[in-house]
Amino acid sequence: MAQEEVQNGGPEKVAEVSFTALKPQLMVEAPKAADAVQFYKSAFGAVEAGRTVYPKRKAEQEQPHVLSAQLELAGSTILVSDIADNSTPVKTEGTGCVLCLETEDVEAAIAKAVSAGGVAEGEVTEGDVACCGGRVGKVKDPYGYVWLICSPAKKCGDAEA
Amino acid sequence: MAQEEVQNGGPEKVAEVSFTALKPQLMVEAPKAADAVQFYKSAFGAVEAGRTVYPKRKAEQEQPHVLSAQLELAGSTILVSDIADNSTPVKTEGTGCVLCLETEDVEAAIAKAVSAGGVAEGEVTEGDVACCGGRVGKVKDPYGYVWLICSPAKKCGDAEA
Repeated sequence: MAQEEVQNGGPEKVAEVSFTALKPQLMVEAPKAADAVQFYKSAFGAVEAGRTVYPKRKAEQEQPHVLSAQLELAGSTILVSDIADNSTPVKTEGTGCVLCLETEDVEAAIAKAVSAGGVAEGEVTEGDVACCGGRVGKVKDPYGYVWLICSPAKKCGDAEA
Repeated sequence: MAQEEVQNGGPEKVAEVSFTALKPQLMVEAPKAADAVQFYKSAFGAVEAGRTVYPKRKAEQEQPHVLSAQLELAGSTILVSDIADNSTPVKTEGTGCVLCLETEDVEAAIAKAVSAGGVAEGEVTEGDVACCGGRVGKVKDPYGYVWLICSPAKKCGDAEA
């Protein structure tokens, strides 16, 4: 086969990246995420597909904070998470909506977004973040929105409440 | 026109409501929505499926504001809209993410959400709002998020740029 498309010696091409899912993540002031989930069930008929909670750490907490509850609604998935000081690596300023984009190649996706004008925030981390599959990075776009670039979600239902 | 809606004669049971689509709508300070669309194409490979613009009203505007651009990304749809003072009935405080929920029965959906603890804001309006099919109402949930309850989108591509 010919190798017509191979380009050597030039600037490195930005990798092609494909995304497998987009999930709005609603950040709720802790510990109201559980109440918010109940509201979305009652108000919109959302169906909870899974929930991951933080290890219960403080005696005064009646229930552990919600790392991520996964709700199915109108053919889409939304995530609802408690936000508290020092409780999460994905905290944004105040509460707000974050957009989770799942991809098999987190680093390439971040690099592409940065080359387009986004700003990477923090390092790519491993961990049980927001139902991600283990790796997550954060890019803030020029318009103020935060995108979490995550490896595909798995095991979300394991911690279902 | 067809016959009028039956007037209700008493308290009605909260109707079952089904939703056909959920679309995060990213509000961007006008006139940056067009730039934001370009960014999401470059950064994430989003594909523009349609765009509706406001009638160009002011001589100083180089281009009309974007009422709603529809982007396909990771199997989902997001909307990107310019927000300017007095330019839109769906304006929220500042910029922010709004969640559009499409349903055939806007009033019933709003009633159900309100009965669950949401607060309806304003009246259900008719018009070319955010690629909705014509009718849209607004519910603010107890956690600060704004949900647009819309009739299903149609004709979005007619104004495709």
